[in-house]
Amino acid sequence: MYAAGDVRVEDVPDPAILEPTDAVIRVTRACICGSDLWPYQSLTPAEGARVMGHEAIGVVEDVGADVQTVKPGDVVVMPFAWSDGTCMFCEQGLHTACAHGGFFGNPEIPGAQSEAVRVPLADGTLYPLPVGEDDALMPSLLTLSDVLGTGHHAAVVAKVGPGKRVAVVGDGAVGLCAVISAKRLGAQQIVIMGRHDDRIALAREFGATEVVSERGADAVERVKELTDGYGVDAVLECVGLDQSMDTAIEIARPGGAVGRVGVPQHEQVPAARPSFFKNITIAGGPAPVRAYIEELLPDILEGRIEPGRVFDRTVDLDGVPDGYRAMNERESIKVLIKP
Amino acid sequence: MYAAGDVRVEDVPDPAILEPTDAVIRVTRACICGSDLWPYQSLTPAEGARVMGHEAIGVVEDVGADVQTVKPGDVVVMPFAWSDGTCMFCEQGLHTACAHGGFFGNPEIPGAQSEAVRVPLADGTLYPLPVGEDDALMPSLLTLSDVLGTGHHAAVVAKVGPGKRVAVVGDGAVGLCAVISAKRLGAQQIVIMGRHDDRIALAREFGATEVVSERGADAVERVKELTDGYGVDAVLECVGLDQSMDTAIEIARPGGAVGRVGVPQHEQVPAARPSFFKNITIAGGPAPVRAYIEELLPDILEGRIEPGRVFDRTVDLDGVPDGYRAMNERESIKVLIKP
Repeated sequence: MYAAGDVRVEDVPDPAILEPTDAVIRVTRACICGSDLWPYQSLTPAEGARVMGHEAIGVVEDVGADVQTVKPGDVVVMPFAWSDGTCMFCEQGLHTACAHGGFFGNPEIPGAQSEAVRVPLADGTLYPLPVGEDDALMPSLLTLSDVLGTGHHAAVVAKVGPGKRVAVVGDGAVGLCAVISAKRLGAQQIVIMGRHDDRIALAREFGATEVVSERGADAVERVKELTDGYGVDAVLECVGLDQSMDTAIEIARPGGAVGRVGVPQHEQVPAARPSFFKNITIAGGPAPVRAYIEELLPDILEGRIEPGRVFDRTVDLDGVPDGYRAMNERESIKVLIKP
Repeated sequence: MYAAGDVRVEDVPDPAILEPTDAVIRVTRACICGSDLWPYQSLTPAEGARVMGHEAIGVVEDVGADVQTVKPGDVVVMPFAWSDGTCMFCEQGLHTACAHGGFFGNPEIPGAQSEAVRVPLADGTLYPLPVGEDDALMPSLLTLSDVLGTGHHAAVVAKVGPGKRVAVVGDGAVGLCAVISAKRLGAQQIVIMGRHDDRIALAREFGATEVVSERGADAVERVKELTDGYGVDAVLECVGLDQSMDTAIEIARPGGAVGRVGVPQHEQVPAARPSFFKNITIAGGPAPVRAYIEELLPDILEGRIEPGRVFDRTVDLDGVPDGYRAMNERESIKVLIKP
């Protein structure tokens, strides 16, 4: 990606082991993220061209001398952040705050919308899968690299549990995975807030019990009607805009929580006073998806959840530019890439 | 209080039982709250004159026909919010969101800087004390009506516990009670942020381990120096200004929490992106002090904590206007009223 709207497929030098803790993986599945659409809409040439992509499954091709937990031939999940797995933040399960970690798909660390990637701190970052590289579960397993773990994070920090009333703001891939996560954690009521028929239909199959398609004050009123007038216990904010955050705070009941995982496009959190007077908890951030794989993987392997259904289009590398266009125009929910 | 700076002592009609769930108490101790200083600085005549005061201990004089848990002669704590004690919010311990409750000291419900108060929903609101009305512990017991419970709330929602690193933003009475609360809950390090010598000295006696008197970026740097570069686990925000909230978010370490109990004087929470990227939890609001009395009372009765030391001046009702002036000019930390 050179600039907003300018995505090109080019030959670049092959990634290689630079540090003894690196691995190089051959990418077998990658995808385009909703968060990739922010630079797709706004990147300036001055910010620097970048190999995009931070979600992947691949096969380990090569490892540095110090790598111990993965070996060539392993099929692995590459989470969107790399992390050492041993610092105090990783030990607390917050791998996205790793003292020595970072993120894929920026000018410094090339990303996974490519044939191969260099993965720093391979031991702490990569998670070996007990399946072959073309397993039928690949789309769902790929969501462990970001969107499923991110939806799960929203639910965890918003304290979703058995019997809770939940609203999900946003019907993108993360919002849909948030529905799966809320149901998985035992929510009694799951209101999906969105207005795209195909996504709403999928949300219902994933466990949404009601749909609110209004926006702003009308949406708030509708959610309150559905929740005895007080709002929901937990709001999973999967958009990141000022208005969606404002709605999230409005529909939370006193003592409730907003789990935010949409990257904020605003500088300030709205509704400082309403959220205070209602004792609302606002939590969330970049999801430590590496920490969640252990818990979520069995549900995928045993078929209890099917997050891979968020992918409604598959492209090869040459199809990536059009994949961006399709997601940006809401023609596709999420695009899977088979290099 | 008729308007900013205009506090008068006047005769008003005696309060009386209006509802069968009411009680009337004779006020034996009341006080002036830091939050009373906001209207003292800004109240307009159009907002309506009010009998101020939302913190009291008193003796029950009369009860309505339905009141069962308190009787004339009982010495009781009157928390700053009245609540039924039975709705779903009260049952969850969030009495300040009571479905049928409200607050003292506004144009509708006269407050406690007076000789007597009508207390709605007396059964749910008042807490009988096992002491006489002139017990030596009265100053400390009085803090159960607001400031101690409020400092405790900040600590609870910021997840203070054994071994945690804590910073308290603000050295007012609530900040000082937040220090007591953090120590009581087992914090390992307690940094008090403030610049008044007398308050800082008291904070140290209450358990503060370090003092940061800088503000803004310098304060952030100092706290990071004291906390291995990452900041604290829990920030107790006891001011409510935009800058103090910004500082609170800056000094929280990744995965940390900000417990805010200073009434926000701003419309938006600053630092939406830094708080997101660090996965900071922001929580808090009006403290359900009624819920906390049970836990905090034994520590006062048995002398383990002395929150009453935040009172550094005692006045009678005629002295209340000057008490406001003294607190507003930071000449007094907190003024106790003996009607």
